[in-house]
Amino acid sequence: MAEGPTITTIAERAGVSIASVSRVLNGLPTRQETVRKVMAAAEELGYVRNAVARSLKSRRTHQVAFAMADVGNPAYLAMLRQIQPVLKAAGYRIVLHSTDAVVADEIDVLHSLGERYVDGLIMSPLRVTGRHLQMLATARAPVVIIGSVPEGTPVDNVRADSRTGVKLAIDHLHALGRRRIGMVNGPPDTVPGAARGAAYIEALEACGLPYDENLVQIGDFYRAEGGRAVAALLDRVPDLDALMCANDLIALGALDVLRAAGRRVPQDVAVVGMDDTDLAAASWPSLTSVSLGSAERGKAAAELLLDRLQHGEREPRVVTVPPRLVVRASTTGEEEGGT
Amino acid sequence: MAEGPTITTIAERAGVSIASVSRVLNGLPTRQETVRKVMAAAEELGYVRNAVARSLKSRRTHQVAFAMADVGNPAYLAMLRQIQPVLKAAGYRIVLHSTDAVVADEIDVLHSLGERYVDGLIMSPLRVTGRHLQMLATARAPVVIIGSVPEGTPVDNVRADSRTGVKLAIDHLHALGRRRIGMVNGPPDTVPGAARGAAYIEALEACGLPYDENLVQIGDFYRAEGGRAVAALLDRVPDLDALMCANDLIALGALDVLRAAGRRVPQDVAVVGMDDTDLAAASWPSLTSVSLGSAERGKAAAELLLDRLQHGEREPRVVTVPPRLVVRASTTGEEEGGT
Repeated sequence: MAEGPTITTIAERAGVSIASVSRVLNGLPTRQETVRKVMAAAEELGYVRNAVARSLKSRRTHQVAFAMADVGNPAYLAMLRQIQPVLKAAGYRIVLHSTDAVVADEIDVLHSLGERYVDGLIMSPLRVTGRHLQMLATARAPVVIIGSVPEGTPVDNVRADSRTGVKLAIDHLHALGRRRIGMVNGPPDTVPGAARGAAYIEALEACGLPYDENLVQIGDFYRAEGGRAVAALLDRVPDLDALMCANDLIALGALDVLRAAGRRVPQDVAVVGMDDTDLAAASWPSLTSVSLGSAERGKAAAELLLDRLQHGEREPRVVTVPPRLVVRASTTGEEEGGT
Repeated sequence: MAEGPTITTIAERAGVSIASVSRVLNGLPTRQETVRKVMAAAEELGYVRNAVARSLKSRRTHQVAFAMADVGNPAYLAMLRQIQPVLKAAGYRIVLHSTDAVVADEIDVLHSLGERYVDGLIMSPLRVTGRHLQMLATARAPVVIIGSVPEGTPVDNVRADSRTGVKLAIDHLHALGRRRIGMVNGPPDTVPGAARGAAYIEALEACGLPYDENLVQIGDFYRAEGGRAVAALLDRVPDLDALMCANDLIALGALDVLRAAGRRVPQDVAVVGMDDTDLAAASWPSLTSVSLGSAERGKAAAELLLDRLQHGEREPRVVTVPPRLVVRASTTGEEEGGT
């Protein structure tokens, strides 16, 4: 990878900053004099022979990359389902990366933008590290991040709002007359675990319900683990009348355990999941779940990227997709018609 | 798309067959004399200037395309989940196409192989038309088809075996003592509908059970439609004791309708689905389902393509992935532990 001229050697030769070279190579609007210097340096160094220079002329690969943490996760697939038609309609192919949420893999993807094999990138990292921010600041193609990035990061950004989502669920349970609302969460050292745990406490207080730490049980974001956490919680707090589960898989585990324990859902215990995956409608009783708008986030990201590709330089935008409570039988007892 | 020299004009100029030109442009082993003629003709016609010729030298784009009918269908996603790591480990990026099973879109994808934006293609068409076969015969990069192609088609081919799959299900129900086994199928003019309907009749006969056309109801491959078909079937044949459903969504509709009718599953009516999607394990009771090996088919397709990319010319191969019955509570009444 270290062969041939690099952005650094071109910057040195042209007597301009690396950022300027990056801007020129990205085809972003730049002062004419700078463009001239960079192009001259690039040609002197033989840079014209490689793929970057080729795409400098044609400017477009008609490809856009989508880097998701896990190709098996329904939330990312819901994004992909929306990203795909928007980009296809605009004449772009999608290059898919599954990074397994490994930071080094994500950095690789950002780094490889320098090869100009795509015109832009949509990335959905689980965590945004300092290394991410550094790469984003010098990315050689437009990037849209699905997830939260710090203020001032020079990329378009699409966010969910799980805090409001948890509040919607707790308000719904409270309105149904539930007063002993348990929370089954994933590990608090994950971004979603931390956010959802804090939101639960806030939402209880907003309803005027006392926070009781006995009502919180930590498990993991999987069905079996979630079920075990629910079993432990039921042992400790036999009179709980509702469960806020930090995702749908935990909620499915809750249904398993409540059924085995002879507790009726929702008559004895109402259950709410989160993410509104396909599994929520398939379960029985069907699961009330908080949608964090994966589909809408995917669509917004694709539209932001297209806008950036078509209109070039503008201020970075932040789009926050509001959550939505999808009410089903696990809280109201009324089964929908089959779908 | 009709500008500049084409494979046909090169073949004419070189005095060789179109297939030979295709082989040379694909970098497949070809007689030295033929390579020389084709390259000379290509250069005379100015073909060296375009992307095809460029990739002739570097030979590789390090990209492979996967064209699936529907990015929302869990069966294709199960394939993708397996294709992705195999190709990633070999240094390939995946370019994703969702064709919505529109033949013209699939033909476009095959046609665009001429642009050499990928080194190879895995395609999973719902139907294989004459136009497909014609394009496959002259494809400018290696192609693996997931689905059945006629004997002699010059591509690697990975197949499912839904016929044996239906037989596994019927044998299982028969072994459990079920004798009035209904079938809820999708439209018989679709490839899966036709195959599964015929397989049901065969499998009954192999068990020594009489075929009764009253036991068959046609619906569609969706939950609500499947449910309606089951309701009609129950009205007509109140004493049926088992249901073979042509996919998992139909089976979920069956569970809805049986529950509403007060029929216990599996005590009164045992239910089997097909495809073994994630929904099968999420439903209650969890669903016995025939896996047609989507994951294994994806893996096999990726491995066949890699082998072809690494070793070039060899006879086309056919891999048939055997089906597998995944037994859950909807036939045996025994719930698994949560997973």
